[in-house]
Amino acid sequence: MAVNLLIAHGGGPTAVINASLAGVIRRARQAEEISRVLAARHGIEGVLKEDLIDLTGLSEAELDKLTATPGSAIGSCRYKMRAEDHETAVRVLDRNNIGIFLYNGGNDSMDTCVQVAALTDRTRVIGIPKTIDNDLVRTDHCPGFGSAARYYAITALELCLDVAALDIHVAILEVMGRNAGWTATATGLAQRIGSIGPEIILLPEKPFEEEAFLDRVRDLWARQRGFVVAVSEGLAGMEGNPLVSVVDRSGADAFGHALPGNVSHYLAQLITSRLGYRARSEKPGLVGRVSAACVSPIDRKEAYGVGVHAVSSALHGATGSMVSIRRISSSPYASEFELVPLSEVANLERKMPDEYYNAESGKPTSGFVDYCMPLIGGDLPDYLILDR
Amino acid sequence: MAVNLLIAHGGGPTAVINASLAGVIRRARQAEEISRVLAARHGIEGVLKEDLIDLTGLSEAELDKLTATPGSAIGSCRYKMRAEDHETAVRVLDRNNIGIFLYNGGNDSMDTCVQVAALTDRTRVIGIPKTIDNDLVRTDHCPGFGSAARYYAITALELCLDVAALDIHVAILEVMGRNAGWTATATGLAQRIGSIGPEIILLPEKPFEEEAFLDRVRDLWARQRGFVVAVSEGLAGMEGNPLVSVVDRSGADAFGHALPGNVSHYLAQLITSRLGYRARSEKPGLVGRVSAACVSPIDRKEAYGVGVHAVSSALHGATGSMVSIRRISSSPYASEFELVPLSEVANLERKMPDEYYNAESGKPTSGFVDYCMPLIGGDLPDYLILDR
Repeated sequence: MAVNLLIAHGGGPTAVINASLAGVIRRARQAEEISRVLAARHGIEGVLKEDLIDLTGLSEAELDKLTATPGSAIGSCRYKMRAEDHETAVRVLDRNNIGIFLYNGGNDSMDTCVQVAALTDRTRVIGIPKTIDNDLVRTDHCPGFGSAARYYAITALELCLDVAALDIHVAILEVMGRNAGWTATATGLAQRIGSIGPEIILLPEKPFEEEAFLDRVRDLWARQRGFVVAVSEGLAGMEGNPLVSVVDRSGADAFGHALPGNVSHYLAQLITSRLGYRARSEKPGLVGRVSAACVSPIDRKEAYGVGVHAVSSALHGATGSMVSIRRISSSPYASEFELVPLSEVANLERKMPDEYYNAESGKPTSGFVDYCMPLIGGDLPDYLILDR
Repeated sequence: MAVNLLIAHGGGPTAVINASLAGVIRRARQAEEISRVLAARHGIEGVLKEDLIDLTGLSEAELDKLTATPGSAIGSCRYKMRAEDHETAVRVLDRNNIGIFLYNGGNDSMDTCVQVAALTDRTRVIGIPKTIDNDLVRTDHCPGFGSAARYYAITALELCLDVAALDIHVAILEVMGRNAGWTATATGLAQRIGSIGPEIILLPEKPFEEEAFLDRVRDLWARQRGFVVAVSEGLAGMEGNPLVSVVDRSGADAFGHALPGNVSHYLAQLITSRLGYRARSEKPGLVGRVSAACVSPIDRKEAYGVGVHAVSSALHGATGSMVSIRRISSSPYASEFELVPLSEVANLERKMPDEYYNAESGKPTSGFVDYCMPLIGGDLPDYLILDR
């Protein structure tokens, strides 16, 4: 008997999450066992509210457009599923004859997946990985990261060109990525072009030492006035807590994460007040994770592929698993998809390994470059840098 | 007798200023009257220090790369030329046999141009327009603006997709453009795709009314929680001064402009503290003016063209003029270059006309859309927006 497939998205959108959705839809439509492809709007919240839309009939042209559209076309949420939601969830799944439930997200979303998988035997549950933070365990990398890394590498490169031209101010580039420094380290890939890039990269892996930072800025300023400092939004103070955070009174993020509080603004003010230098903050913020112009072709292809693989795996009987990307080779780059148990992924954060960054400058090591360059899908723009 | 050409850049870099430089170099190399193409590093400061580099020998491949490279490849400055610099300037021009002096920049730079033009009859002086602010008078628009407008339109569109997906916070997008709202209004072009775009656009042309703004945010929040407010960095308070500015103690900007002080951060904090809503600032900052991925093809072509026209005009004997762009037709778009007296351009700011924006929402009128769409060089990405 044919069943329906239900998909939902959790957590922050990316530039390629819709590519995974398109992969799911295309693969599901090929399967005789699947009648309709339904999507819940705004993640698990949409499931609980039974706010479902039918995507079975999207045209091929619409699916092509969906693949290229950043953000989450079916919405997303930061709702943390609770025990009292379980009965509702089962009722909605049963009433809509959901034989396959796919949830696309990061480590919080995989927690939701684990809960749904434990609820019923009638629905196969597969997690689809997604996060620009690249902090899911048990996968070489996460769809969304390659494009974000490409965005930040190109942005850092172009910002360096701008500030070097005027040579009058320190620019602090704030990078998303929560408590992991993968994306911030990617700004250092700019260095591959014309030997310019951020002079300092402040990572969440390394507690912020104010005086050492100011000393370094003072030294750099004596040599040049236009340089870039990249800082992860999740930069931690000496006690390990976020250096700058805000209290969220809206209750919108039920996972209880501290919200980043504009650390680039804080550092720019610190430099100006303590050293008297002109400093400014550049904080693309959410723009960094939805910029389609910097999408990595490899990332989009893999995002599409994990969607396809999730459906195929469920059709073969898998449940309680997340699709994972295994790297076969870095040069030439090759990867394949496999399944890992959801319980080994949910709620865990993968920090960046120490050997991927220089402990003093925060700049990427050759190990990180080898890891990351294939994922950004081609080299950076080959700009002309005149000898300075 | 053959002379040398000297070019320099003033003010903030753009994504296409190097295209103008490439146009200058290519045109100058065709002219028998010109021996060498020299560039001063870091604008008029480089002229006064005689810090010159010879670009005559760049290869065709290098010139192609230069055309596509954002930022200013020869540096720039914010130095205001003074009377006591004049003697040095004349000495440098004479010693280097400079028959043609080109200065590329905005209204401050045209002031430098006027001064140099008055110094000597032996050097022809032509200004090349450039500013993302689009605030030069006597030209339909300025090279650099079309690409910045394209960047902000696409960025606003993508940001709207992101915040609509989560529907939990107000995002404040800060837009460069100093005291003119051209670039901020361009964020409203996002509305052409799927009827999404910033709900409020705060322009420097209209003093900020705090209570009215908070009322509007409250109304919007009651209907949806994910929406975008675009704000110009130069937003003015009720007294006409910048709402948020910082004192520059470094002395780096000799034109005495107040520095923008992170108005997006201010507004996000205002919303959070006064209304308790989750709000965040997205401030691409300098990234917005050097992003090559969003360059408008028309803008790059015109930037190249004004460089070519500056050289041709000087060869024909012109001096004391700025190259200007005259629009012949909007649909299909066509323009031509002409010369206007530098004295009618220097130090003047062109504000955006009232009829280009809605007085209440700040959103663009059809007049602005007709004006701006040809300049961004093609329509915005055709994303798939599912019915919400």
